[in-house]
Amino acid sequence: MTGSIRDHVVLLVGGVGGAKLAVGMAECLPPEALTIIVNTADDFEHLGLHISPDLDTVMYSLSGLAHPINGWGIADDTPRAMEMVNRLGGPDWFRLGDNDIGTNLMRTSMLDEGKTLTQITTHLSRQLGIQHRLLPMTDDTVRTIVETNQGVLGFQEYFVRERWQPVVQSIRFEGILTAHASHEVESALDEAALIIFGPSNPYLSIDPILAVPRIKQRIEQSATPCVAVSPIIGGRAVKGPAAKLMAELGADVSPRGIAAHFAGLLDGLILDTIDQEEIPKVEALGIRSTAYRTLMESLSDKVALAENILTWTEETYP
Amino acid sequence: MTGSIRDHVVLLVGGVGGAKLAVGMAECLPPEALTIIVNTADDFEHLGLHISPDLDTVMYSLSGLAHPINGWGIADDTPRAMEMVNRLGGPDWFRLGDNDIGTNLMRTSMLDEGKTLTQITTHLSRQLGIQHRLLPMTDDTVRTIVETNQGVLGFQEYFVRERWQPVVQSIRFEGILTAHASHEVESALDEAALIIFGPSNPYLSIDPILAVPRIKQRIEQSATPCVAVSPIIGGRAVKGPAAKLMAELGADVSPRGIAAHFAGLLDGLILDTIDQEEIPKVEALGIRSTAYRTLMESLSDKVALAENILTWTEETYP
Repeated sequence: MTGSIRDHVVLLVGGVGGAKLAVGMAECLPPEALTIIVNTADDFEHLGLHISPDLDTVMYSLSGLAHPINGWGIADDTPRAMEMVNRLGGPDWFRLGDNDIGTNLMRTSMLDEGKTLTQITTHLSRQLGIQHRLLPMTDDTVRTIVETNQGVLGFQEYFVRERWQPVVQSIRFEGILTAHASHEVESALDEAALIIFGPSNPYLSIDPILAVPRIKQRIEQSATPCVAVSPIIGGRAVKGPAAKLMAELGADVSPRGIAAHFAGLLDGLILDTIDQEEIPKVEALGIRSTAYRTLMESLSDKVALAENILTWTEETYP
Repeated sequence: MTGSIRDHVVLLVGGVGGAKLAVGMAECLPPEALTIIVNTADDFEHLGLHISPDLDTVMYSLSGLAHPINGWGIADDTPRAMEMVNRLGGPDWFRLGDNDIGTNLMRTSMLDEGKTLTQITTHLSRQLGIQHRLLPMTDDTVRTIVETNQGVLGFQEYFVRERWQPVVQSIRFEGILTAHASHEVESALDEAALIIFGPSNPYLSIDPILAVPRIKQRIEQSATPCVAVSPIIGGRAVKGPAAKLMAELGADVSPRGIAAHFAGLLDGLILDTIDQEEIPKVEALGIRSTAYRTLMESLSDKVALAENILTWTEETYP
């Protein structure tokens, strides 16, 4: 059976961290062997645009357009449209570059024409030369709502406008009960030989994907190995609110906390070498575990981690 | 009575030519003494944006932002959003600069919030420092449809995409019968001491304003002097399809043709000195006429024409 895991890998991701692993996986696997399912509960309507931050982060990363430092947006993009919005007294807290606005205008107008987000994502990613399959978790509207000590906030208000400083009390995904996994997402999961949860925020990026009706059940009931990459390294998140949020919600801010969060779903957890003493604690939960360098700074870091994950899962789930 | 005409001038305009006269008038008259009513039948929805080309041309001209040569858009604007749209396979025939997209995002999102185009235009023009009143002809949706030898075209398809090359057979204003003049437009016309039709395309810019129910009747029935500035100089339009279109529709491509088109409404016609032999022909229609330099290249040209119009009407309709 060795090698069959590489026939079809399904990677579930949110934004920056997941996008980096997607780039590494896309280097290791041919187009037909990788499907990336992306969180869309961070999507929002702003200035009349339908903005899909995670889809775009992954799309820009895979096409080589991504801003190398920000983690969002396009390299060398300019801020002229938003400067005008500011001058006209409009909201400019969500910074969209001009190129990026072009993407959002396309997405919004294609939605207006009645195309699905799945169709649009396929079109846009092909236009950018992406050969691997990129899928939104659903074509239906799901919105993350964060209840905080500063009131109930839409996700982007919490994340961008308030720079994730409010203390989170609970998280819900508005619209999730009536959302459907697309045919493409269901097929990808059915055909998966390996399912990977990228090093993304478990509560804000992976949970909404799992919460789409039938996705979690499909993964639970399937014999396909499911492994996660810990977004927590040395008690901290590489980027974003994962560690702060886990602490606020009373979770153990560690790879073990990640494993516990996904208990019942995970067969394996990849953690960082810095945390390798956590391996026994994770394995005590019935989840196999191993340690690699998981911090992805260069392209070779991304490819090395992807290759290590594939090799380890081939050996661990033969 | 001399001087009272300057108490409240209402200027009806389309795009570039009218915008130039608006700039001249705004230099001659204090904010409370000038209302500019702008054609919105050229408006259209494109890439999810509500675009109001004539309103923006006037707004950018009055605020000093206008591109000095194009006649549309903002000086030194950049094309990055549309470059991305092009890269993503979208329509890029309607060129919108990045700053300009900022304006259109604001307008579109304010419409989505339920604000009227009149409210939005007031907000945007004030943000840009414009003190004179700028009003869309209506808050309702009116769209110019052009029937041509190449089929039925939306206005911007005819004007921009096809560069006004198709031969026009007829023009209609979709939605006009159910459109309403806003309270602000009706008040401005009621309080007008002078009504001026700018040097705009009579068929495509002034006619749609007049076609809004009750606007033409208000002007016809009022004792207020109504004068037009001929957009035809020496048998040609300064810019755009006015002359070509008049010929296609069988009109006389001359100031007399303009006067005849507006017969019953006009009390006076300002024509260019190059056409001064037309004065008797115009006056034979019962319309007073005079000649000035009407080509507006510099700011002083604009101010001089505005001042000449005001002085002449004061003397002619005492």
